[in-house]
Amino acid sequence: MTSTPLSQETRGIRAAVRKVSAYPFTPIDVPIKLDQNENPYDFPAELKAEAARRMLERPWNRYPDLHADKLREALARYEDWDAGSIVVTPGSNVLIKILTELAGINQTMLVTKPTFSVYTLEASLLDAKLVEVPLNPDFSLPVAELKAALEREAPGVFAIAEPHAPTGHADRPEDVQELVRHAEQYGWVTVLDEAYYQYSGTDYRDLVRAHPNALSLRTFSKAWGLAGVRLGYILAGQEIAHNLQKLVSAFNVNILTETVLEVALEHPEYVQRIVQETVRERERVFAALQNHPTCQALPSQANYFLLRTPDAQAAYRHLLSRGIVTRPQDGQYLLKGCLRVAIGTPGENDTLIAAVNELK
Amino acid sequence: MTSTPLSQETRGIRAAVRKVSAYPFTPIDVPIKLDQNENPYDFPAELKAEAARRMLERPWNRYPDLHADKLREALARYEDWDAGSIVVTPGSNVLIKILTELAGINQTMLVTKPTFSVYTLEASLLDAKLVEVPLNPDFSLPVAELKAALEREAPGVFAIAEPHAPTGHADRPEDVQELVRHAEQYGWVTVLDEAYYQYSGTDYRDLVRAHPNALSLRTFSKAWGLAGVRLGYILAGQEIAHNLQKLVSAFNVNILTETVLEVALEHPEYVQRIVQETVRERERVFAALQNHPTCQALPSQANYFLLRTPDAQAAYRHLLSRGIVTRPQDGQYLLKGCLRVAIGTPGENDTLIAAVNELK
Repeated sequence: MTSTPLSQETRGIRAAVRKVSAYPFTPIDVPIKLDQNENPYDFPAELKAEAARRMLERPWNRYPDLHADKLREALARYEDWDAGSIVVTPGSNVLIKILTELAGINQTMLVTKPTFSVYTLEASLLDAKLVEVPLNPDFSLPVAELKAALEREAPGVFAIAEPHAPTGHADRPEDVQELVRHAEQYGWVTVLDEAYYQYSGTDYRDLVRAHPNALSLRTFSKAWGLAGVRLGYILAGQEIAHNLQKLVSAFNVNILTETVLEVALEHPEYVQRIVQETVRERERVFAALQNHPTCQALPSQANYFLLRTPDAQAAYRHLLSRGIVTRPQDGQYLLKGCLRVAIGTPGENDTLIAAVNELK
Repeated sequence: MTSTPLSQETRGIRAAVRKVSAYPFTPIDVPIKLDQNENPYDFPAELKAEAARRMLERPWNRYPDLHADKLREALARYEDWDAGSIVVTPGSNVLIKILTELAGINQTMLVTKPTFSVYTLEASLLDAKLVEVPLNPDFSLPVAELKAALEREAPGVFAIAEPHAPTGHADRPEDVQELVRHAEQYGWVTVLDEAYYQYSGTDYRDLVRAHPNALSLRTFSKAWGLAGVRLGYILAGQEIAHNLQKLVSAFNVNILTETVLEVALEHPEYVQRIVQETVRERERVFAALQNHPTCQALPSQANYFLLRTPDAQAAYRHLLSRGIVTRPQDGQYLLKGCLRVAIGTPGENDTLIAAVNELK
């Protein structure tokens, strides 16, 4: 907009928004998509057909539930949680936005460095003071530094991910617990981002139950294989859920998504099967890359891992030439040379291993 | 939460959120739903089937477009607008939220009184100073008072609806134009909420084209009969669209909605037919209620109208006893005794007329 004369600019647009660059993502059309940490398998065909059948029975001209009550009840049964303390939105990105609205605006967003980019993006857009505490070099939580920041920068939103994005590191439960307790004492809304918990076998529901300031953020975009359908949810205590719900736009989850989720939650067994394969494949890919002369696969508890290479751009381009797209993380703290690579199907992983083995 | 001891409260939750009551809507299951200004006809059955067929062909495990590019291109063709200057979200409620984020936070939200409740709700939640200028008693825009407020309270979001919600009043185009010009001079982001423009035959696209500070907000929830599918959009200038797009959560529109909209935009002819019937029915209902001894149907250019009754609660309950649900507006400025009533199918309208005629 630099060529536009000043008088033509809209003064009302907030400076914080102007300053931010758009979310960086460019889709690339290649056969093997390992750049978005998706489940490599589609939602099962028979369940897609069942969902479509039910969609056709519903009227599309009528608004959905104000706050997806029936879906929240189905989730409550699945998660053994109070339906009134579950908040759902079209994708967990929206939850990060409204958490920033709940407790970040004109306050603080405290995260690790690196972290999932949507936390830093929403903090910047919504005038939350962004405080980033560097991870330890082994990607574990810097507990003492985070505790100091929790004391110094209160209050606001404190977000950690278990397992972590983009490193895939899962922390010691006692460290997580200590931080949640400390954050509670200083009045923080504490987000445990569990987008990938199925792959790590961790589950912080009981910790959230014990701490009304903490919440677990979950998604259907990963293990459930429903990234295209968009649903994220939060398990929280009553106080946070009640206030967060006010920030969810009315009728936010459409009837199509409601219907798909209804079917998915009636058939959760397919998830476990795919997660088990993905975890097996993750370990197989690791083992296969152990003796690589120049590249290092970093340990991960998620459905992706970091591949440290001598030159991230060159490695990215080489993999692309073999039909594989990954996500460069080179510019981030501690992640020099790193690509983030999702675990695909066994065949895709074979192609990946062969392509990485071609790297000098 | 009053019974919770203070020490248990989460200090980080912003006071503005705590103070707000949740969006007031209670669904009521009766045969004739005239409370949400929906199109009374479902999306055509053959188009539903075609959309479902295309959904099944797409993978559900892959993320949608980052910002619904293909959908925005289809909308651009339909609206004769630059695709890069269109912003889409799951429902226009979300657009009102991100407009408040764009230019309302720590600034001003200027609206008429009464107005669509989501504007005042988001202003309260997001720390925008809410300035409400009372409509003239005939529901027309108070041009001089609004111009004074535009000068006094700049900058921020200035929102008017054409036709107006909840009155259904359509203003003189020269008044709208004068306000848009004035708002531009003082740096406001000016929202022309055109959720119901198909029913009034008005269209402010050309005014938006001429004023980079103005935008038109539109929806598929009314004339298009797709309230359950959730899609709202904005036609804007490049500067506002570019900045507003940063505030849209990534992958916000799911592939199911994308698919339905793709089909709808290939078959826009069904909309005109239903709109024409609704407009004819609106005039018929009006004519039928002209000589009512105690109730007054107020003129409207939308797919709903205000029914002024001697006692809104009694009238609401009577209509409910006849299987008709409407929306009480009694508590709002200028709307004493009023119910908001949508235009239904001819049969539903017959039942409505008979039920209103029973009111003393």
